Amino acid sequence: MLHDLFPPGIQHALDLAGIFVFATSGALLAVRKNFDVFGIAVLALVTALGGGLFRDLVIGAVPPAAFGELSFFVTPLLAAAIVFFLHPEVARINRLINVLDAAGLALFCVSGTTKAYEYGLGLTASAALGVATAVGGGVLRDVLVNEVPSLLRDREMYAVPALVGAALVAVFLGMGVLTPLTSGIAVVTTFVLRLLAMRYHWRAPLAWNRRSSVAEEP
Amino acid sequence: MLHDLFPPGIQHALDLAGIFVFATSGALLAVRKNFDVFGIAVLALVTALGGGLFRDLVIGAVPPAAFGELSFFVTPLLAAAIVFFLHPEVARINRLINVLDAAGLALFCVSGTTKAYEYGLGLTASAALGVATAVGGGVLRDVLVNEVPSLLRDREMYAVPALVGAALVAVFLGMGVLTPLTSGIAVVTTFVLRLLAMRYHWRAPLAWNRRSSVAEEP
Amino acid sequence: MLHDLFPPGIQHALDLAGIFVFATSGALLAVRKNFDVFGIAVLALVTALGGGLFRDLVIGAVPPAAFGELSFFVTPLLAAAIVFFLHPEVARINRLINVLDAAGLALFCVSGTTKAYEYGLGLTASAALGVATAVGGGVLRDVLVNEVPSLLRDREMYAVPALVGAALVAVFLGMGVLTPLTSGIAVVTTFVLRLLAMRYHWRAPLAWNRRSSVAEEP
Repeated sequence: MLHDLFPPGIQHALDLAGIFVFATSGALLAVRKNFDVFGIAVLALVTALGGGLFRDLVIGAVPPAAFGELSFFVTPLLAAAIVFFLHPEVARINRLINVLDAAGLALFCVSGTTKAYEYGLGLTASAALGVATAVGGGVLRDVLVNEVPSLLRDREMYAVPALVGAALVAVFLGMGVLTPLTSGIAVVTTFVLRLLAMRYHWRAPLAWNRRSSVAEEP
Repeated sequence: MLHDLFPPGIQHALDLAGIFVFATSGALLAVRKNFDVFGIAVLALVTALGGGLFRDLVIGAVPPAAFGELSFFVTPLLAAAIVFFLHPEVARINRLINVLDAAGLALFCVSGTTKAYEYGLGLTASAALGVATAVGGGVLRDVLVNEVPSLLRDREMYAVPALVGAALVAVFLGMGVLTPLTSGIAVVTTFVLRLLAMRYHWRAPLAWNRRSSVAEEP
Repeated sequence: MLHDLFPPGIQHALDLAGIFVFATSGALLAVRKNFDVFGIAVLALVTALGGGLFRDLVIGAVPPAAFGELSFFVTPLLAAAIVFFLHPEVARINRLINVLDAAGLALFCVSGTTKAYEYGLGLTASAALGVATAVGGGVLRDVLVNEVPSLLRDREMYAVPALVGAALVAVFLGMGVLTPLTSGIAVVTTFVLRLLAMRYHWRAPLAWNRRSSVAEEP
């Protein structure tokens, strides 16, 4: 199976790592919002599994991995439990969380694109769905806490590294050279681009002739 | 069929009762928000059918019952019409609505868990999807009126009774003893727990070391 | 195929026209919200494709047209690019956009109802899903920018013309007389009703005994 970019055990470990990191970001936001222990668990689950759930519904992979694979369900609950007890310590390592989140983004956009292609989508559609897999959980998280998704608001170039990574995978698939090595290149490229975007505050342009000083709509 | 916990006619009547109650809660919220008659109907439909729609998409039951069963579609419209004309009277029996909502929660989490299991999900995933069936419509309702879902915000122990009920069903399924009787026990347990949680204001804990007096994020 | 109301080339052109118009409305809202170029593209895609995506998930048309048809994906990006550079000019032709949006609403509710019926839904469910196809993208757009959907809030009779058009299609289907001609009648009826509703400010009634002067909930 193409989806197994890496030997199954390693692939599974990488998936769980991405899920864990996204779940942590959801749980920390829930603590900041003063949600109770169940709200923390729900937000951890939604953030970690929302993107993959959307992908699986679109490609018809039923039941979605989020409901078919027990470890995908337990991992966010574990992250929620850790944040519940240790949130001051976890929040303090904010920089590490951002690095891990970049790793999650990289892993999800590459594995999402690959899985979509396996299920028969075209190259462009696969790359688009790979990006949606990577950013979808965060969008759901922000909608649930009643905020404009940071994806739309932050101008942080969150989506661009995912776009590049997914496009790389699509190119490799089109050329018939997607291997664990080239997949790894796509993951690392995405990861490094995201770290650079954060480090140097790369910002995407606003609409032409629109100064960022323009007052936002209330 | 397992899904028919009770003789088909009774099962169907119970489903319709749950749908009616949830639709009423959505329609009342729409009136409070000053929505027009169509907004009231939309919010009634979404609240009543959203949870089951999500469940059916996840398990691949296409078309979902919300679109396959005419009475499931007409019942929320009936509830919307009643609220449209009689909303002051309906709102006055707020306590009764809360009791009925507890009944809807109990019925939906038990029938949702059972249906998910029938479609091949594991026991844990079935219970999780049963809870999602029971609370999903209310989450969609709150997102549409631009509020943080009361599930996350209220600390009202809304999810816990559903969790207990769904877990009971999963245990009965695992032991091979799910019958109308044991299903009824799960429904009644959920219902009573929810009533007790409301009566005695049971509250779920906030994150460790976080006092509820801490100012919420703006 | 019923879905081809018109010769395939014309049907496809009409679909693309509807997608283009809805994408433009999403992109303009993103500019007003000061989103960057990626936010503009995302909101254009979601607004244009969200309704059809929902319809296709409900009827089990996997992968959804949004991910199976490259031109459906490229058109919103083109609209986003035009808005990115020319938004003051585009916004100035606001009246034209409203007319085009009415055309998109008309096309989507008719083709959505027809496609749902083709996939085996009943007449009522098909009409309901046709309306959801027509209004769904706008609802998602508003949820993402953290506003109560204008569908619920505006009392602008946005849904009513779509309801009438979808009901007409259902009647024609039930009588076995759905042809390009009768489909065209449904499209034109929806379009004209929507224009009249805008021109004469038709407003839907609030709940009985509830004056529009009542202060809205904060």
